Amino acid sequence: MWRIAVCVATFDFSLIQDDLLLVEDRLRDVAHVDVPGLAGILEQLLQSGGKRLRPALVLLAARFHDYDRQQAVSVAAAVETLHTATLVHDDLIDNSLLRRGNPTLNSAYQSGIVVLVGDYLFGKSAELASQSKNIDLGELFARTVAVICSGELRSLLDGKRWTLTREEYRERIYAKTASLFATCCESGAIVGQATAEERMLLRAYGRYLGMAFQIADDILDFVGSEETLGKPVGSDLRQGTITLPAIIYIDRHRNDPIVRKAMANGDEGTKSELIERIRSSDAITEAYAEAHSFARQAKESLAGFPDLPCRQVMMALADFVVERKT
Amino acid sequence: MWRIAVCVATFDFSLIQDDLLLVEDRLRDVAHVDVPGLAGILEQLLQSGGKRLRPALVLLAARFHDYDRQQAVSVAAAVETLHTATLVHDDLIDNSLLRRGNPTLNSAYQSGIVVLVGDYLFGKSAELASQSKNIDLGELFARTVAVICSGELRSLLDGKRWTLTREEYRERIYAKTASLFATCCESGAIVGQATAEERMLLRAYGRYLGMAFQIADDILDFVGSEETLGKPVGSDLRQGTITLPAIIYIDRHRNDPIVRKAMANGDEGTKSELIERIRSSDAITEAYAEAHSFARQAKESLAGFPDLPCRQVMMALADFVVERKT
Repeated sequence: MWRIAVCVATFDFSLIQDDLLLVEDRLRDVAHVDVPGLAGILEQLLQSGGKRLRPALVLLAARFHDYDRQQAVSVAAAVETLHTATLVHDDLIDNSLLRRGNPTLNSAYQSGIVVLVGDYLFGKSAELASQSKNIDLGELFARTVAVICSGELRSLLDGKRWTLTREEYRERIYAKTASLFATCCESGAIVGQATAEERMLLRAYGRYLGMAFQIADDILDFVGSEETLGKPVGSDLRQGTITLPAIIYIDRHRNDPIVRKAMANGDEGTKSELIERIRSSDAITEAYAEAHSFARQAKESLAGFPDLPCRQVMMALADFVVERKT
Repeated sequence: MWRIAVCVATFDFSLIQDDLLLVEDRLRDVAHVDVPGLAGILEQLLQSGGKRLRPALVLLAARFHDYDRQQAVSVAAAVETLHTATLVHDDLIDNSLLRRGNPTLNSAYQSGIVVLVGDYLFGKSAELASQSKNIDLGELFARTVAVICSGELRSLLDGKRWTLTREEYRERIYAKTASLFATCCESGAIVGQATAEERMLLRAYGRYLGMAFQIADDILDFVGSEETLGKPVGSDLRQGTITLPAIIYIDRHRNDPIVRKAMANGDEGTKSELIERIRSSDAITEAYAEAHSFARQAKESLAGFPDLPCRQVMMALADFVVERKT
C-alpha cells in the first residue's frame, strides 16, 4: 500500500464539514476513469484521508459572503488535485520512497507512469477549476501552477547549496507552499464575490499562513521523531535541502568544525552530528519566532473582517499550523 | 544543442502568416522567465522553427467567421505550448535521446528538471488558454490534457504487446494525437462563434486529420530513411511500440517464423528482419489506404462550409499530412 497521507494532524473543520464532503465526492469522480489500473492508483492518491487543508481554505475564505456552493466545491477539489499532482512529481524528483510513513507511488511504479499520473492530475485539476465557470478563477489557478513549477525549477537549476540566504529561502517556500495557500484564499474570495480589497487581504492571509506552515514543517523535520515524521529526522539536510533552522545555525557558527566539514561535502556521520546540534540549538527557537511572526501577520490580515465563525476558524488555524507536532 | 524540431516539412500557411507571427510573440513571452537557466531551455523548446500545425488549425478553423484575433492567438499559443509539454515528457518516458535528429532535453538534463519543465509548460499552456477569457475554451483545453494523459497511461499500464488490435491502435492514436487536433479545430470554431453544428463538424475535421496524420507518421517510421527520420528506421517496433503497418503485417503472417520469433522476445537481428519485411510488404499500402480514408473523411466534414480560402487550405492540408515524406 502506497498513499499520500495526512498533511495536518487534527484541526476542527466541522464548520465546513458539509462542503468538504462534497469536495470528497468530486475527488472520487476524478478517480473514476475507464483505464485498467489507473482508477486504483488515483483512488489511493486522492482518498488518503488527508485533512484537506487547501480545500478548507477555499471554503473558509468564501464564507465571508454568500457564495455559490458548487463553484466553491469545484475550486476546492481543483486545489487538492493540483496539490496531489505536485506531490506525485516531487516524490519522483526527490526519489522519495516514503511520504508520512507510507510508500510513495514511485516506490511501486516505473517513472513513466508516475510522470503521467501527475500530468493527468494536473489536467483534471485544470478541468475542475474550469468547471467553476469563472474566468478569473481559471486564470489564477493556471498562474499558480506556473509559479510552483518555476520555483521548483529555480531550486533545482540552482543546485543544492549550503549558502542559501534567508531571502532565497523565503522565495522558495513562497513558490513551493505559500503561493497555493494564497491562491486558495483568493479563490474563496472570488467565489464569494468579495471586494478587490477583501480579495487582496484574504490572499495575504493565505500567503502568510503558507509561509508559517512551511517554516513549521521545516522545523519539524529537525525536532520531530522518526515515528511522527514517517522518515528519518533531518531528512531535508541529509538530502542537501537547506531550510531555515540550518540557515540560522550555519550563519551563527561559520567556524564550527562540524559546519565546515558538512559544507565541504561531509559524510553521513558529520551530517547526523550537525542535525543533532541544530536540533538542540536556539536556531529552532528563532525559526519558530519567524513562523509565529508570519502567523501573526496572517491574523492581522483578517483584522477588518467581521467576526464570523469562518474568521474564528481561520484565526485558530494560523496558530495551529505553527504549533502542530506532526 | 538540443531542440524540438519541425513536425511538418513544408506546407503553405501564408494565409494565416500574420496571425502565426503573433503566436510566435506569445511563445516568446512564455520563455521570458526570471529563473537563471530556464529561459534558455524554454527558448530552445519553443523557438525551434516548427511549422506550428496545431496553432494553424485553430487559426484556420476560426476564419470561417469573424473572429477575435487576440483570443485566437491565445488559444493557438496554448495548444502549441501544451504540445511541447507533452513532447518533453514523452521523450523522458521513452528515454528518447533524439527527436528529428536533434538531442532531446532529457539527453542534456537530469530527469527532475525535465519533469518540471514539462509541468511548467502545462501551467503556461493553461494560463494562455485562460487568457482567451472564454469558459468553454478553458474547459475544452483542460479536458484534452486529461484525455491525452489517460490515453498514454492506458498504453503504459497495458504494457507493450504484439497483440494490439486495430481498434486499440485507433484509440491510442486518437488520445495521443487526434484529440488535440480535434480540440484545435473546435477551439477555432468557438473563437469564431460558430454554430453548434459547425463546431461539431470542425471538431470532426480535426479528429480525422489527426488520425490520418498519426497513421502517416507511423508508416514513415518504416518507409522513411534514417536521414529524414532523424532516428533509426523502425524505431517504434524496436522499442516495442506496435503501430498499424506491424498490426496488418502480423495479422497476415501469423505463422511466419520471423513474426513468431519477434513475438517471442526476439533479438535486434530478428526485429531488423521483421522491419525489412514490413517495409517492403503491402501492409504499407493498406496502412496508407487507411490514412487516406481518414483524410477523405476530414475533407467530407468540410463539405457544407463555404469555399473560403481557409477551407481550401484545410482541404489541401488533409492530403498533405498523408503524402508528406518527413
